[in-house]
Amino acid sequence: MNFRSIRYVLSRIMLAEAAFMAIPLVVCFIYRDPLWDILSFVITIAALVACGLLISIKASRDGEIFARDGLAIVSLSWIVMSLFGAVPFSIAGATSNYVDSLFETVSGFTTTGASVLPGEVIESLGQGILFWRSFTHWIGGMGVLVFVMAILPMSGAGNMHIMRAEVPGPEVGKLVSKISKTAKILYGIYLAITLAETVVLMICGMNLYDALIHSFGTAGTGGFSNRAASIGYYTNPAIHVSISIFMLIFGVNFNVYYLILLRQFKKAFDNLELKVYFAIVGVSTAIVTANIIRQVGSFGESLNLSFFQVSSLITTTGYSTTNFDTWPNLSKAIVILLMFFGATAGSTGGGFKLSRIIILVKSAIREMKKLVHPHAVSSVRIDKKTVDEDTIHGTFVYFVVYASVLLVSFFLLSADPVSEDPTTSFTAVLSCLNNIGPGLGKIVGPAGNFGTFHFLSKILLTVDMLLGRLEIFPVLMLFAPGMWKRRRSMSKARLAKIYAEDDKRLGE
Amino acid sequence: MNFRSIRYVLSRIMLAEAAFMAIPLVVCFIYRDPLWDILSFVITIAALVACGLLISIKASRDGEIFARDGLAIVSLSWIVMSLFGAVPFSIAGATSNYVDSLFETVSGFTTTGASVLPGEVIESLGQGILFWRSFTHWIGGMGVLVFVMAILPMSGAGNMHIMRAEVPGPEVGKLVSKISKTAKILYGIYLAITLAETVVLMICGMNLYDALIHSFGTAGTGGFSNRAASIGYYTNPAIHVSISIFMLIFGVNFNVYYLILLRQFKKAFDNLELKVYFAIVGVSTAIVTANIIRQVGSFGESLNLSFFQVSSLITTTGYSTTNFDTWPNLSKAIVILLMFFGATAGSTGGGFKLSRIIILVKSAIREMKKLVHPHAVSSVRIDKKTVDEDTIHGTFVYFVVYASVLLVSFFLLSADPVSEDPTTSFTAVLSCLNNIGPGLGKIVGPAGNFGTFHFLSKILLTVDMLLGRLEIFPVLMLFAPGMWKRRRSMSKARLAKIYAEDDKRLGE
Repeated sequence: MNFRSIRYVLSRIMLAEAAFMAIPLVVCFIYRDPLWDILSFVITIAALVACGLLISIKASRDGEIFARDGLAIVSLSWIVMSLFGAVPFSIAGATSNYVDSLFETVSGFTTTGASVLPGEVIESLGQGILFWRSFTHWIGGMGVLVFVMAILPMSGAGNMHIMRAEVPGPEVGKLVSKISKTAKILYGIYLAITLAETVVLMICGMNLYDALIHSFGTAGTGGFSNRAASIGYYTNPAIHVSISIFMLIFGVNFNVYYLILLRQFKKAFDNLELKVYFAIVGVSTAIVTANIIRQVGSFGESLNLSFFQVSSLITTTGYSTTNFDTWPNLSKAIVILLMFFGATAGSTGGGFKLSRIIILVKSAIREMKKLVHPHAVSSVRIDKKTVDEDTIHGTFVYFVVYASVLLVSFFLLSADPVSEDPTTSFTAVLSCLNNIGPGLGKIVGPAGNFGTFHFLSKILLTVDMLLGRLEIFPVLMLFAPGMWKRRRSMSKARLAKIYAEDDKRLGE
Repeated sequence: MNFRSIRYVLSRIMLAEAAFMAIPLVVCFIYRDPLWDILSFVITIAALVACGLLISIKASRDGEIFARDGLAIVSLSWIVMSLFGAVPFSIAGATSNYVDSLFETVSGFTTTGASVLPGEVIESLGQGILFWRSFTHWIGGMGVLVFVMAILPMSGAGNMHIMRAEVPGPEVGKLVSKISKTAKILYGIYLAITLAETVVLMICGMNLYDALIHSFGTAGTGGFSNRAASIGYYTNPAIHVSISIFMLIFGVNFNVYYLILLRQFKKAFDNLELKVYFAIVGVSTAIVTANIIRQVGSFGESLNLSFFQVSSLITTTGYSTTNFDTWPNLSKAIVILLMFFGATAGSTGGGFKLSRIIILVKSAIREMKKLVHPHAVSSVRIDKKTVDEDTIHGTFVYFVVYASVLLVSFFLLSADPVSEDPTTSFTAVLSCLNNIGPGLGKIVGPAGNFGTFHFLSKILLTVDMLLGRLEIFPVLMLFAPGMWKRRRSMSKARLAKIYAEDDKRLGE
C-alpha cells in the first residue's frame, strides 16, 4: 500500500469538501437561516480543513498508484467524505442521531435519494441545510474524485486506477489521453447540462432555489426534493415533462455528449446500450400507460405519470409524481424490473447497468450456440467491437457478487420487524443497492420514508448504498486479508515491479 | 441429428410409460373406480403402445448418439411423456380442460407438486387417478430415461449424453463405468428407500394407499397429496417427523448412498455440499422456530412445524403441515431463500442446487482475491478436487440464463390479473421453475392452488416447470437455429467426425 499517496489524495478530498460546503454556508446567510445551521457548516468546514492539513503532512503526490491503491483510495475517500458530510445535519438538529445523519448523507452522495426524514420535517428545515442535502447528489453524481482529478496534478497511471474505481460500469474509456483533461471535460458537460435544466425549470415557473435543488437531484440521478410530495408538488405538467427528459439525459453515457460536441454524430448514436435504454423506456412507458389508464382516468395523464415514473426509475433518480405503490400488479412488476436494470454505464445513474446486462445476455447466447455448434468459435461483439474475455468473466463474477449482496441484505432486513412483507424488504434493499430511493410497500414506497427502520437496518442500508455506488469491489477490498500488509521483506523496487505486473494482468 | 436413434428411444419411453400406467389401472380395479377412470387408462395405454410401435419402425438402436442428440432426446421424451400422461386426467374428467391436465401432469413428472385442483376436488377423485397423479412424481424423480437406460441395451457413449442431460446438477458422475449398471444401482437405491418410507408411514398409522401416495411424493420430492390439507391432515407428529427426515434423505446426492453401500463412509460424508445442506437446514430451522414461537405457542410445536417446512422447501418437495403464508416476515424471507437454493445435485430434488451456489461463491471469492494478489494464480477446489474452469464458466452462464427465465416469467405472470402482488407472481414462478409446488400469497400459498390463473399463465408455468426440471438448456436447444438441420452436403463419416470433436470440447 502506498500510504503516502493515499494520505495525499484524502487530504485533497477533505479540502475539496470544505470548499463545496462553503456554498450552503452562503445560502444560509442569504436566507437568514438559524444560527445553529450556520455554525453547523462553519464547524464542519473548520474540522475538514484542520484534518485535511494534518494528514497531508509528509504525504506525497508523486508516489506511484497501483490498481489496489486506486480501489482503497476511492472507498476511503467516500467513507471520509460521508462521515464529515453528515456532521452539519446532526449539529443543525435535522436528524435525531448521527446514524440518521449518515444515512441521509450517504443517500445523498451515492445519489440514492432515500430519506429517513418524514415530509413535514423536510419542509421545516433551513434552506442552507436543504441545499447541502441536495448538493451532495450533484457532488456524488459525477464523483468527487473525478472532480479532484480535474484540478489536481498527479501522475497519469494512478489517476486512471482511481477513475476506473469510481466511475461505474464494466469498462471505463478515457475520452482523451490525459485523465485530468477527461475529468475536466466530464465536469464541464455535467455543469452545462445542470445549468440548462435550472434555466428550463425557471422558465416553467420554479423559483431559482427550487430549480437548483431539483437540478442537483436530477443531474446526480439522486432524487432528494425540498417538497414532501416530491415533484408531485408542482402542478405544471411542463415541469414533469422537463424533469423526465433531463433525467433521461443524465442516464446516458457522457461519452455520447462528448462525441456530439466533436460532431461525431454517427459514432455517438451507433451505440447498442443507448438503443436498449430508449427501447426499454418506450416499451415500459407504453405498458404502464395502458395498465394504469383505468385507475387514472385520462390517457394524457396516464402517459405523463407513466413516462415520469419510468424515466425516474430506469435512471435510478427516484423522483415521483404519484404513489406508484398503488398501481396494478403488472406496473409494479415493471417498477421492480426497471429498478433492477439501472441506467447506462458512464452516466451518473446507478443500478446494475444496461451494458452489463447486454454483455451477460450476449455471452449466454454464445454459450447456447456453442452447445449446438461447439466447433464454431465465436467472440461476443458489441458495437462492432469484440468484448474482451476478461471483461465478460468479470461481469459474470460481478453479477454473482451483486446477487449475493442483494440476497444477504434482503434476509437481514427481513429480520427488522418494521419490514411488513417480502416486497417491502426486497425493494428497500434493491432501491438502496441500486441507488434509486423509493421502493414498494407502505413504508419504503414513494409516500413513505426509511426513518422507522431499526438503526441496525439503517446501517445495513447505508453500507448497501455505498456498495452499490462504488460497485462493491472497492469496499469489499478494504476487508480483504493482506490488503494492508506492507511487505517489508521486499525491496521497494521489487515491490513496484510485482504491482506493475499485477496491473498489467488487471488490464490497463 | 440422429433421427433413427431419437425415434428408437422415444418409442421405448412410450412403451415404458404404458407399462407404468398399468399399475394405476390395477388400482382402479382394486378400488372399483368408475368406468371412465378405467377407460381413461385403457385408452391411453392403447394409444401409447400403438404410437410407440409406429415410430419404432425403421428406428435404430445402434446409431451413435452425440451430446446434442442426447439433449434433444431428453427434452422430446419429457414432452411426449407429459402429453400422453395428461390424457387420463381429461378422459376421467378430473380437470375441466386439457391445459389443466397437462399442468397437473408436468407438475407431477417434474416433481413440482403445484396443483390446479382445489382441495375438495382432489379428495373426490378416484383412487386410480390419484395414484397416477402421485406415481408421476416417482417416475419423474429419478428420471424416466434413467429407468429406460437401466433396462435398455444401448451404446455407452450415447447413454452418457442422455444421462448428463436428464440428471440435474453441474456435473454428473458415473457410479460405475457402465451407464446401464449405474442406472440400475440408482433405481435400486431409490426403490429401497421408497419402500422403507412406506413401511415407516404404515407403522405410524397410515393405510397402505396413503403411505404409498406420500412415499411417491417424498421420493420424487414432488409434493402431491391425496388430502386437501396435505400432511397437515395427519395429526400424529410421528408422521410429520418421519416425512421430514425422508424428505431430507431424498434431497441428498445418491452417490452418498452408493458410497455407504460400499462402506466408504469417510468418502461419503467428506462432502462440502452435504455439510452446507445440513447447515442450512439446521440454521433455518432454528431461526424459524424462534420467529414463529409467539404465533404458535409451544416450543415443541414450533420446532415441528419449522423443521417440516424447512425440509420440505429446501428439498423442493412442497408438502406442508401449516400455512406458512401467515408466518412473520423473517420466516417468509427464509422461505423464499430456501425456495431459491434447492437441494443437492444428484438427488431427486430440484432448484438451483447447492453445489452450483458453492461453485459460484468460491469462484467469486477467488476473483476478489485476485484483485488484491493478481500474481497468485489459484484454482477453485471443492472436496480436495479442482473444479474444472469449463464447469465454473458453465455455472456462471447457467446462473444468468436461470435469472433471465425467472425475471421474464415474473414479468409475464404479473400481467395475469389473478396475480395480486409482486410476491405472489414472483414466488409462483420461483416455485414452478424450482419444482417446489406452493409459493407465498393467498393464491399460490400452501392453502391455495394454481387453478384460478389464466390458461396462458398455466402454459407459461408448465414451460417453467419443464425448464426447471431439465435445467433449461435441453428445452431451449429444441428451438436453436440449425439444431434440426441435416447437413446433406457432408458425408456421414465427416459429420460423425465433427460431432465427435464437438463432444470432446463439451467434455466427456
